[in-house]
Amino acid sequence: MSIVRDVPARTREAPAGIRLVRVALAGCGTVGNELVRLLRLRGDAIERAHGIRFELARVLVRDPARARPEPVASHLITSDLDAFLDDAADADVVVEAIGGLEPAARIAGVALEHGRVFVTANKALVAEKGGQLQESARRGGGSLLYEAAVAGGVPVIRMLRGPLTQTEIRGVRGILNGTSNYLLTRMTAGQRFEAALSEARARGFAEADPSRDLDGRDAADKIRILAWLAFGVDPADVRVRRRGLLPRPDRLVADAAAVGGVVRLLAECTGRAGADDQVEATVEPVILPPDSHAARTEGADNLVAVDTAHSGVIRISGPGAGGAATASAVLADMIHGGTAGDPPVFSHAGTGALPPTHTGLPRWVLSLEARLGTAALPAILREEGVEVARSIVDTGGQLLRVLTTPCESDRVLAVEQRLEEQRLAPLVTRVETSPEWTGGSL
Amino acid sequence: MSIVRDVPARTREAPAGIRLVRVALAGCGTVGNELVRLLRLRGDAIERAHGIRFELARVLVRDPARARPEPVASHLITSDLDAFLDDAADADVVVEAIGGLEPAARIAGVALEHGRVFVTANKALVAEKGGQLQESARRGGGSLLYEAAVAGGVPVIRMLRGPLTQTEIRGVRGILNGTSNYLLTRMTAGQRFEAALSEARARGFAEADPSRDLDGRDAADKIRILAWLAFGVDPADVRVRRRGLLPRPDRLVADAAAVGGVVRLLAECTGRAGADDQVEATVEPVILPPDSHAARTEGADNLVAVDTAHSGVIRISGPGAGGAATASAVLADMIHGGTAGDPPVFSHAGTGALPPTHTGLPRWVLSLEARLGTAALPAILREEGVEVARSIVDTGGQLLRVLTTPCESDRVLAVEQRLEEQRLAPLVTRVETSPEWTGGSL
Repeated sequence: MSIVRDVPARTREAPAGIRLVRVALAGCGTVGNELVRLLRLRGDAIERAHGIRFELARVLVRDPARARPEPVASHLITSDLDAFLDDAADADVVVEAIGGLEPAARIAGVALEHGRVFVTANKALVAEKGGQLQESARRGGGSLLYEAAVAGGVPVIRMLRGPLTQTEIRGVRGILNGTSNYLLTRMTAGQRFEAALSEARARGFAEADPSRDLDGRDAADKIRILAWLAFGVDPADVRVRRRGLLPRPDRLVADAAAVGGVVRLLAECTGRAGADDQVEATVEPVILPPDSHAARTEGADNLVAVDTAHSGVIRISGPGAGGAATASAVLADMIHGGTAGDPPVFSHAGTGALPPTHTGLPRWVLSLEARLGTAALPAILREEGVEVARSIVDTGGQLLRVLTTPCESDRVLAVEQRLEEQRLAPLVTRVETSPEWTGGSL
Repeated sequence: MSIVRDVPARTREAPAGIRLVRVALAGCGTVGNELVRLLRLRGDAIERAHGIRFELARVLVRDPARARPEPVASHLITSDLDAFLDDAADADVVVEAIGGLEPAARIAGVALEHGRVFVTANKALVAEKGGQLQESARRGGGSLLYEAAVAGGVPVIRMLRGPLTQTEIRGVRGILNGTSNYLLTRMTAGQRFEAALSEARARGFAEADPSRDLDGRDAADKIRILAWLAFGVDPADVRVRRRGLLPRPDRLVADAAAVGGVVRLLAECTGRAGADDQVEATVEPVILPPDSHAARTEGADNLVAVDTAHSGVIRISGPGAGGAATASAVLADMIHGGTAGDPPVFSHAGTGALPPTHTGLPRWVLSLEARLGTAALPAILREEGVEVARSIVDTGGQLLRVLTTPCESDRVLAVEQRLEEQRLAPLVTRVETSPEWTGGSL
């Protein structure tokens, strides 16, 4: 059971034919410390099932004196980055659980160039530096593993890197941010945004500063990673058109309800017809039918749907957030990296021949506050060529809502911009109508 | 593009640093021939992405003269099993797409004992001989891969063998038979059983003889495989309590509708508390809420939900049947087996410490045809201690239905048996009420 047992450097053979795998862990916060706990709890089972025993060789922390729920032997702890990098170059598996770009990228580079298995839960790192790190891994013979970076404990990375690499992927869509999904679920049930956010914080589903979750940056990092895996484009090159839940989250949920729908923050990527290496990615609130898979993905759950040429639409879902799910995904990568004789050969599908974007136009809901004036709307809609399918006035008469006929986004965005210039606080939300993604597909 | 190029035996290095992987294929029916087609269509993309090129070395068929949608060079074809076994022992990857236990098991044994990668879509083979074949693989240094055996193109095997091996699994449930799910979906929409079956046959979702699909044997083989992966028990030792859709499929669907539910053929396995290595597996029609994930799994789709100790419930779903999805899963295994430097190290989780079966008792719907007499029912229910929550008489007065209060299965099965002895043609169906599996979970 001893995970803090001291072993001589590079000793790889434990007495009973069990292979020792030396782990250098950077970061011992929520995820890192939960991982230490899992190694203690699951160490024996992992040894029985996989024939390996993880041994913590070094743990990099900011504050060595800080008390941790799962104690770590003090002789393993360091706050010296350079000393840690020496240990990382020498460990079998290097786990990064610090977050942010630096020093995470430096640790990753050293580990991969030295041929180590590098495991991270850091989506920003992979989204920004993934292509570069993969190249370091190739040069150094290391392995870059990041299952925990997208969708927590839901093994979507493994699915895209493994069994689906051979199939042509048409698109990937999903709910990739547990915090915003938790908020939208509670608000759909009637709670106001501020109350839902307080509750999410209290239950550990939102951080003190949830701005990256609310404005879609977190989901954008994740869809860039999925676009990398699906289409082979460097994630740093994937531009994401992005909208978040703010500034009018309550109206967003009410607008969806007004047309009988449910709103979800969807992240999507598809290839663009005729333009190789061009991938279109978006993160935005979308109104969906209440019985769609996305609408039925509730609380902090995540959902990913992969539209494949040969295997139809494959969906995977489950808890997308939380230290336990994330640490569990990190541990799965560690086992994978620790048991493979050679570094796992993972290539990206990168078919080069991207499928056409689906052609069905979406509808849109546009809402305006009556007190700010709505008189300008009809002329602007007409001038931009946006047709109204239905006007909906809410019971209190405070909002004017229109549902458009199917319409290009450029036109609707032009309407939105003109209304914004007049300070009319418009809210424009896409309504999902493309048949291949609604109901049965998402 | 040439997949029929002749290469000298054991040549592993192709000119451009591409590794040639010699494939011996047993069976060239729907799945086998679709695989040959995929190898032609995807060969270049696989070479670019994975650095390997599959070369068909030999194809075993029953009838060499038969015309095939995707032609195979005649010099590769043989109908001589012994000659094929010699080739299989010498190939890099051996694919079995014949079905049935023999000669599939013999081919598997030869391939694995000779250290080859053996890929199969044959659920009966894996369910009956999986433990034994895994042992052959261990002895011979071969790899046993069978992603296509369960849920077609949905990578549930990879999920259980890979990222979820490190977590404690509490139970696995799902819809594992596309044919019966297609029929139930159509019948729920109002079609009669016979019409739905004709339609399913016409659309390729049911074979000429669908009896293994309808009576649950097909799903039983699959849940035994999943029980093996989840709990480490030899699949041959997993006993499955099984009911199918017959003999009263139309009444089954009507009974579900009468209590506001939807019926699905569920396969389930859980560990039994206190009895190590004891796994309980069932395949039976279950009535579920219409908004549950299982009820919303429609047509030939499959769904698998894995209840994990550390990552909550993870669900995966997608097309569960069809030659294309199956061949695609076979190809994914071939790429995995063909690219791994060493044979992939796959162990089963087999925690040994099985969690308790959930304790919530189900309700049951019991229906009787009025014309056969229902007078005996009240006394039998009373004597067996089964309490009625609600009696439901259908509009035509032809059926008497009762919904029970939560109740042990033994009591209800005793009632059923006594009614059957009196030739009253009872139908008893479980109603899902266990909160951890309904709604959000399945």
